[in-house]
Amino acid sequence: MSVNLRIPGPTPLPDPVLKALSGQMINHRGPEFATLIAKLTEDLKKAFATTGDVVILTASGTGGLEAAVTNTISPGERCLVVSIGVFGDRVFDIAKTYGADPVKLSFLLGQAADPDKVRQALNADAKITTVFVTHNETSTGVTNDLGALAKVIKGEFGKTLVVDGISSIGSVPCPVDAWGLDVAVSGSQKGWMTPPGLAMVSVSKHGWDVIAKAKTPRFYFDLVKAKQSAEKGQTPWTPAVSVYYALDAGLKMMFAEGLEATHQRHARIGAHTRAMVKRMGFKLFAADERYASNTVTACHVPEGVTWKQVSERLRNDHQTVLAGGQGPLMGKIFRIGHLGWVNEKEIDQAGVALEKSLAAVGHSLGARSS
Amino acid sequence: MSVNLRIPGPTPLPDPVLKALSGQMINHRGPEFATLIAKLTEDLKKAFATTGDVVILTASGTGGLEAAVTNTISPGERCLVVSIGVFGDRVFDIAKTYGADPVKLSFLLGQAADPDKVRQALNADAKITTVFVTHNETSTGVTNDLGALAKVIKGEFGKTLVVDGISSIGSVPCPVDAWGLDVAVSGSQKGWMTPPGLAMVSVSKHGWDVIAKAKTPRFYFDLVKAKQSAEKGQTPWTPAVSVYYALDAGLKMMFAEGLEATHQRHARIGAHTRAMVKRMGFKLFAADERYASNTVTACHVPEGVTWKQVSERLRNDHQTVLAGGQGPLMGKIFRIGHLGWVNEKEIDQAGVALEKSLAAVGHSLGARSS
Repeated sequence: MSVNLRIPGPTPLPDPVLKALSGQMINHRGPEFATLIAKLTEDLKKAFATTGDVVILTASGTGGLEAAVTNTISPGERCLVVSIGVFGDRVFDIAKTYGADPVKLSFLLGQAADPDKVRQALNADAKITTVFVTHNETSTGVTNDLGALAKVIKGEFGKTLVVDGISSIGSVPCPVDAWGLDVAVSGSQKGWMTPPGLAMVSVSKHGWDVIAKAKTPRFYFDLVKAKQSAEKGQTPWTPAVSVYYALDAGLKMMFAEGLEATHQRHARIGAHTRAMVKRMGFKLFAADERYASNTVTACHVPEGVTWKQVSERLRNDHQTVLAGGQGPLMGKIFRIGHLGWVNEKEIDQAGVALEKSLAAVGHSLGARSS
Repeated sequence: MSVNLRIPGPTPLPDPVLKALSGQMINHRGPEFATLIAKLTEDLKKAFATTGDVVILTASGTGGLEAAVTNTISPGERCLVVSIGVFGDRVFDIAKTYGADPVKLSFLLGQAADPDKVRQALNADAKITTVFVTHNETSTGVTNDLGALAKVIKGEFGKTLVVDGISSIGSVPCPVDAWGLDVAVSGSQKGWMTPPGLAMVSVSKHGWDVIAKAKTPRFYFDLVKAKQSAEKGQTPWTPAVSVYYALDAGLKMMFAEGLEATHQRHARIGAHTRAMVKRMGFKLFAADERYASNTVTACHVPEGVTWKQVSERLRNDHQTVLAGGQGPLMGKIFRIGHLGWVNEKEIDQAGVALEKSLAAVGHSLGARSS
C-alpha cells in the first residue's frame, strides 16, 4: 500500500513526473537545456498569468523569498511585512537579517490580513516603500484576499508589492498582472506536482526598476543575472536539471487539465476537506472560513489529544502522513495538505485513517452535522 | 545510441542513481528523511575524510561558495583569494559583493598556484585573516597542490583556509582534516554521480569559531542553521528530496568501489585522457602536466579551428558532448570531463569522435608520439 502523503509539500508525484525525474543528464549549457528553459519560462508565465518575466532558481521556496527581499530592498529601507504566520515572520526575519528596516503588521494566527489595517499602517508611515504579503499562509491554512490587499497597496498607495505565493500560485487563482504583483514567488514542491528544489519568481516591469536600485548585496540569488542567463537559454549557476525535467512534466499535466480546471479542483477539494473535518467534529483553525485555504486545511487538535500519538498511529497503522503545527502552533493544530496531485478519494482515506487513529489513542470525536 | 556526455558536470548518471531519482516524495520533517540525512552526513564525512561536520544545502556549487564566503567573513575584512581561473575569480566576486576586502592573487591561466607566491602575499599583508583556494579549477583543468598550499596557509601562518573542492572532493584525494581545511565545498553534479542541486560543505572546529564571529548577513545559506537542523534530522528549508535520494545511491556506488579505488580510477583515467589527447597531437592547457587535473582535461584548440564547428559535429554526428572554454578562454580551449561515472572506453570513444569531427571541419592533426 502506498503512503497517503497529505502534507502541504512535498506532495505526491504522479507517474509522468517520477518518470521524468529519471531522465539522463544533459549539458546545461547546450541546446536541449535552452529549449527546456524557454518552454518552462513560457509555461510558468501562463501559470502566473503574467506577461512579465519569470525566472527559475535552484533553491527551495525560502531561497526564492530571500531573492525577493534582497533584490528589492536596500539596507535601512523601510518596508511593511504583513504577517499571518510562520512564513510572513520568515520574510520579516530575512529583511531584518539583510539590514532593511521592516515593520511587521501581524494578525492573530488563524486570521487573514485586514485590508483596512494595511491601509492604516501605510497611512501611518509614509517612508514605507515596499509591502511584503503572504498569499497563502501554509502554517495556518489561511489564504489572504490578495486582490483586496493589492487594491490598497498598489491601487491606493502605489507601493511596490512583493508576494509569497509559494503554496498558492498554480493551485489557486493568483493573477500576477491583474493584481499588480511586482515580485511573486512560488516553489516547485507545492501545487506543481514537482519535487522541491526550484523556486520560481515573477518580476514586473516596475519590479525590475526597483531591483535596479536596490542595494542589498546578492550573488547566487541575483535575479538580473538569472534573467540575463535565461535569455541565452541558460542559468547563471548549474541548475537542478532533474527537477527541471519534473517541473516540465508537472506543467504538462496542469495544462492538460487546464489551469482554470486545476484551480477549480483545488477549490472543490478544499471545500470537500473542510466539510469532512467539520462533519468529523473538528474545528477549523481558520477564524473565518471564507479565508480557509484551498491548498491546506488546518484544524485544532481536540482537547485531551496528544497530536504526536495520533500522528504515529496515522503513520504506522494507516500509512497516512499529515502535518503537525509549526512554531507556536506545534501540538495545537494539525494540517491536511491538498495541493498538487490530489483527489477526493485520498482526502476521504485520510479522514478514515484520522478517525481510526484518534480512536486508537482513546479519543472519540463528538461528531456533529456540518 | 546514448550520448557520451563528457563535460565537467553534470555527469552521466548510472542506473541505480536514475532509479533512485524516481523515488516517491516523503515528509521532509519525518523519520525517513531523518534516517536519510543522518546516513548521508556520515557517508560524506568519510568521503571528505573529516571528523568535523558536513552539511548539505539545496543549491548548486556556487551557492555553496556563497555560503563559504558569507559565513566566514565580515564586511571590511581582508582576505586573500588565490585564483587560477573562473571559479577563483567567482569567489573573489562573491567576497567583493558582500563587502569584504578581498585581495586577489592571480596566476596565469593554465598554471597552478605557487605556494611561495602565497607565502609572499601573506607576509606582505598581516591583515589577511582568511585564504580562499580553489582545489581543482574546472575552467582550466588544473589542480592545485592543496596539501602544499595548506602547509603554508595553515601551517606557517595559521590563517583560516576555505576551499572550493567542488570538482575535486570525492574524485581526487582531498583529506579535509589532514590538510586542515576549515571550510570545504563540493557539488553533487561532480564526482558524486548525482544530478546538480546539492552543495556539500564541511566545517572544522576552528571553522565554526570563525563562523560564530563573522558578521556578513546570511539566511538561506546560514551554516549554523543547517547544522542545528541536521542534528534534528532535518534541513532548515525544504530540501531537494529527489537529489538526496540520488546522492545516497551515488555514495553507495562509491563505497562499493572504495573511496581510494575511486580516486585511483580518476587518476588512471586522467592519465589515460592526457596520453590520448597528446597522442592525437593536442597540447594540454595545463602549463605543467604535474598539475593537470584528474577530473577534467583542457586542451588548446588547434590554430585555424573554430571550436563551435567541431562541437556541433561532435554533437550531431557522434552524440558526444565536450565542453568549450569559459570567459576569456572561450574558443581557445576545449575540455573533456572525466569525473564520476566514467571509464576508459568512454574516453576512447570521445577521442575517436573528436578526431572525426576535426576531420569533418577540414582539420587533420599532426599526430605525434607522446
